[in-house]
Amino acid sequence: MPRKIILDCDPGHDDAIALLLAHGNPDIELVAVTTVVGNQTLEKVTRNALSVARVAGITGVPFAAGCSRPLVRAAEVAGAIHGDSGLDGPVLPEPTLELDPRHAVDLIIDTVMAHEPGEITLVPTGGLTNIAMAVRKEPRIASRVREVVLMGGAYAGGNWSATSEFNIIIDPEAAHIVFNETWPLTMVGLDLTHQALATPEVAAAIEAVGTAPARFVGELLEFFGETYREHQGFDYPPVHDPCAVAYVIDPSVMTVRKTPLDVELTGTLTLGMTVADFRAPAPSDCTTQVATALDHPRFWALIVDALERIGDPTP
Amino acid sequence: MPRKIILDCDPGHDDAIALLLAHGNPDIELVAVTTVVGNQTLEKVTRNALSVARVAGITGVPFAAGCSRPLVRAAEVAGAIHGDSGLDGPVLPEPTLELDPRHAVDLIIDTVMAHEPGEITLVPTGGLTNIAMAVRKEPRIASRVREVVLMGGAYAGGNWSATSEFNIIIDPEAAHIVFNETWPLTMVGLDLTHQALATPEVAAAIEAVGTAPARFVGELLEFFGETYREHQGFDYPPVHDPCAVAYVIDPSVMTVRKTPLDVELTGTLTLGMTVADFRAPAPSDCTTQVATALDHPRFWALIVDALERIGDPTP
Amino acid sequence: MPRKIILDCDPGHDDAIALLLAHGNPDIELVAVTTVVGNQTLEKVTRNALSVARVAGITGVPFAAGCSRPLVRAAEVAGAIHGDSGLDGPVLPEPTLELDPRHAVDLIIDTVMAHEPGEITLVPTGGLTNIAMAVRKEPRIASRVREVVLMGGAYAGGNWSATSEFNIIIDPEAAHIVFNETWPLTMVGLDLTHQALATPEVAAAIEAVGTAPARFVGELLEFFGETYREHQGFDYPPVHDPCAVAYVIDPSVMTVRKTPLDVELTGTLTLGMTVADFRAPAPSDCTTQVATALDHPRFWALIVDALERIGDPTP
Amino acid sequence: MPRKIILDCDPGHDDAIALLLAHGNPDIELVAVTTVVGNQTLEKVTRNALSVARVAGITGVPFAAGCSRPLVRAAEVAGAIHGDSGLDGPVLPEPTLELDPRHAVDLIIDTVMAHEPGEITLVPTGGLTNIAMAVRKEPRIASRVREVVLMGGAYAGGNWSATSEFNIIIDPEAAHIVFNETWPLTMVGLDLTHQALATPEVAAAIEAVGTAPARFVGELLEFFGETYREHQGFDYPPVHDPCAVAYVIDPSVMTVRKTPLDVELTGTLTLGMTVADFRAPAPSDCTTQVATALDHPRFWALIVDALERIGDPTP
Repeated sequence: MPRKIILDCDPGHDDAIALLLAHGNPDIELVAVTTVVGNQTLEKVTRNALSVARVAGITGVPFAAGCSRPLVRAAEVAGAIHGDSGLDGPVLPEPTLELDPRHAVDLIIDTVMAHEPGEITLVPTGGLTNIAMAVRKEPRIASRVREVVLMGGAYAGGNWSATSEFNIIIDPEAAHIVFNETWPLTMVGLDLTHQALATPEVAAAIEAVGTAPARFVGELLEFFGETYREHQGFDYPPVHDPCAVAYVIDPSVMTVRKTPLDVELTGTLTLGMTVADFRAPAPSDCTTQVATALDHPRFWALIVDALERIGDPTP
Repeated sequence: MPRKIILDCDPGHDDAIALLLAHGNPDIELVAVTTVVGNQTLEKVTRNALSVARVAGITGVPFAAGCSRPLVRAAEVAGAIHGDSGLDGPVLPEPTLELDPRHAVDLIIDTVMAHEPGEITLVPTGGLTNIAMAVRKEPRIASRVREVVLMGGAYAGGNWSATSEFNIIIDPEAAHIVFNETWPLTMVGLDLTHQALATPEVAAAIEAVGTAPARFVGELLEFFGETYREHQGFDYPPVHDPCAVAYVIDPSVMTVRKTPLDVELTGTLTLGMTVADFRAPAPSDCTTQVATALDHPRFWALIVDALERIGDPTP
Repeated sequence: MPRKIILDCDPGHDDAIALLLAHGNPDIELVAVTTVVGNQTLEKVTRNALSVARVAGITGVPFAAGCSRPLVRAAEVAGAIHGDSGLDGPVLPEPTLELDPRHAVDLIIDTVMAHEPGEITLVPTGGLTNIAMAVRKEPRIASRVREVVLMGGAYAGGNWSATSEFNIIIDPEAAHIVFNETWPLTMVGLDLTHQALATPEVAAAIEAVGTAPARFVGELLEFFGETYREHQGFDYPPVHDPCAVAYVIDPSVMTVRKTPLDVELTGTLTLGMTVADFRAPAPSDCTTQVATALDHPRFWALIVDALERIGDPTP
Repeated sequence: MPRKIILDCDPGHDDAIALLLAHGNPDIELVAVTTVVGNQTLEKVTRNALSVARVAGITGVPFAAGCSRPLVRAAEVAGAIHGDSGLDGPVLPEPTLELDPRHAVDLIIDTVMAHEPGEITLVPTGGLTNIAMAVRKEPRIASRVREVVLMGGAYAGGNWSATSEFNIIIDPEAAHIVFNETWPLTMVGLDLTHQALATPEVAAAIEAVGTAPARFVGELLEFFGETYREHQGFDYPPVHDPCAVAYVIDPSVMTVRKTPLDVELTGTLTLGMTVADFRAPAPSDCTTQVATALDHPRFWALIVDALERIGDPTP
């Protein structure tokens, strides 16, 4: 039986690929997609999500827009990495899906409460504002959610500051809420995703799929590769967000370690750091774990496989 | 035309009196009452609000329960001051009103959006979790609300720490959100409310009203006076929350000063302090003001007047 | 028997007057003067101290230069208030005294250790870097010093930030050290010194003394009055530093209150705030007190008296 | 020409071995030894240093005691790791050396100022209180010291908290001062020293030296190995402090990386973290570097060699 997920995202190049992976993989059932300010403004990432839905041929899944700014801090977007649209590179088709009228926070709550306990997995790949708001508005979702598998954070070096990763530092208070809830939580952070590089071999394998969605991904990687080269000094771009989806599909695609995790809210140098305590074996009641090592070939094989299954949807 | 307010409260002895004042005064139209964790658990303060509604004979006003814990911090209640029920002292009648099925956050949003811009005044007398959640979920309320008049904070000495007041320190992040929004905000803090003492003359005037609600208030003041004497060293209890309602009824009942205000989130000694900057005249675009001096006789006359108007409602 | 003090200062207009008061008053014996970066650079304030010594006719007292920067933070001077020299206004005579070769920290330690326990009072009127360094280098001075009477801090509103006073915020870590030592400490902060205004009557009384040092003080007040008018919105300048000396001369010249005091080191809005906890009577082992109310006529009478006693020293 | 060093230490098992290495290696000239509170109280670590001097046959080198507590925080010692004496395990001989009468801070300043610029290297292996005090008391040492090579800190996981190492977290303000000075600084932190394990092969090689100092080291390692096993979960103890000395002897014994470093002073979870920013190549004016990888055999060969050269000193 496929795993039911809500993808909470801010497309974003790697979010777009995460959406394609979630849609194309048979072990995932995408039950809702929600958007949140992050890589670009809420308006832009929401439109991007709907454009990607059209590229991927996604229908029958509710998409809802969520929070347009972080809880406490002013919004900060990543225009240098994702471009002015948040998804620069390919031509983005006009969306055909209509947005769900509900707020993302309510769509998340309604979906979790409408399913049995343990059925829904939350997969946030942006800032954690929507998820934090949802669990504060309806605390019962904490025990009904199966687990939270998120892309964000870093235990050994950040990208938006020396210690902190973008998705966490843009709304550290929301992250603190999510990391300290009672649900099981897996952090797929930079420590893992900086291993998910789209090498030339990867790009070639994707191109070989030969479909419109595969070409779309190729164009995303081309733009994203360029900005990562220029602004972060990477030879090949790390494709963060699909790693979280891949973990849901098949946990054995990466090594994870159970360890206490928390989010720093007051550091001058370390605001938004996701602090892992590796000094001792995690206590038995520890609900958090971090991803540490990726099986690169198997990860990219999942992407290629999803693209092949998606094929060329009727536009 | 009476001022339409949403009272967001955590009854609480002084919240109960605030509710009676808002109901009894003809210049206020109570359009909704929402509850939030604070003086006691959400469950208790919500039941208390409904009990007070019965005492006061309030009907036709939606009451909704809100957040059961602060945004980031663990919940902390004030059992030593308000007792185990949150409203110890009088016998609390069984509620007769039914709760509105909506979450307080949604009732606030719906109410504000259903009225014209500038019609609704928010009067929070507890922690600011609900208000913060509402404005993050629906940012448009920030410009539609007429003003926020809140009981909370202190610029010159706190009650829950050396510098900080209970309503703010229990959810400083929510307070930071509310204080930094674009709406006009009046802080009626301890600097003002510690002047609103229920002296023996006040108690006598209330007793003289001679109705069941007045007796109820008398019993509240008796209990509250005792805990304030014991735990805070006051001769007579300061009755905080109705001061915020009184300001909405008649701003001339207190002196206010326009001044920049903000909430400290990282201080070791000063977490939750509401910092006022009195060093210079406030800039012309300053949207915040603080109450500094109370007209004690006129304030208590408003309370007595409201009790007289309420009379003895049919139980 | 006069009280032996070490004046640790950063002249500075009001420091200069403090030095004149300490020299001229018969109940004070000035046993050492030490300088510290603050109102201006160490080099400038040290030269100023020696110039004032010449104006006042001080001889036989060791003067030593101390720390040229705060412990942790970068140095910040108050050029807008005290001018480029740190003592703008009067013509400053060439110093005739030679500096003691010792570092101020060592002069403080040597002086305290060379006297009996309880003999030496420290009177810091600048940042607390020297004092903090001295007590960390030689912890035994904590129990040998009679008391510390300092000008600095504020419990109800600052001058260099909304909450914090200049002498504390320029080196909050040093202040934290000094406030948390075991010695008795009296904080003469802005709450008190903003009452020590040099009104026209005060200026006239000083002018009437008719000596060169009195004219010097008149010129200091003229310049200081101008910068306080322009930068701090005062009608007449508050003359901070001599208040601490005045307390040593005669504690009854001001009201003090025993209360726990501490220095905020991590606040975003409140860094360097001196937090007083007035919520309850101070515990019996409390070693700190704050000055709250000044007897303005008696304070200024001490200044005039000191100037009269100093007379016209041989230059 | 041997490198002249001042060893500022808190013996401490690994400090003792650092002292033996510095004494026995011909490329080091030990010009002063200073002690500071840390692994145990100042009194204990100072006595330990003198005892080790006797074991090693050190004469003609001034030893001075320094600060007995950190700048701002209360003292915290590591009794669980180093025992009640700070050097539990071997029998400690009565010291024969007399302490220098100067304070360590002054011995450091005097020594640096008495040598040519660039001659003296500071090697702190404890908390940084003495070094911070010295450079604040005499700022000119910052440009006269050749470099600071310190044992302390960690960029990827601490030992006294999740993020922070003991020597830094016990006096983070002092560390902040030292890390932000203008001198070249090499941080030999846990990232490196957790590679310097005293394996059974190492223990056997030391035992094979067959001298009294070698037996002394063997007994130190035995005790230290036991506490590290019990309290930190290590199979073999990491011998931190001699790594810093080894770097001075031969920088090629470890890999270092130039990178900006700073010390977190306000983090709730991260206080005392030494934050390295590896996101980009260090700017050309960067004065700090971190050690990342150790040549384990060559490091231990240096220790064995030093013990062989020390031989069996006349007691």
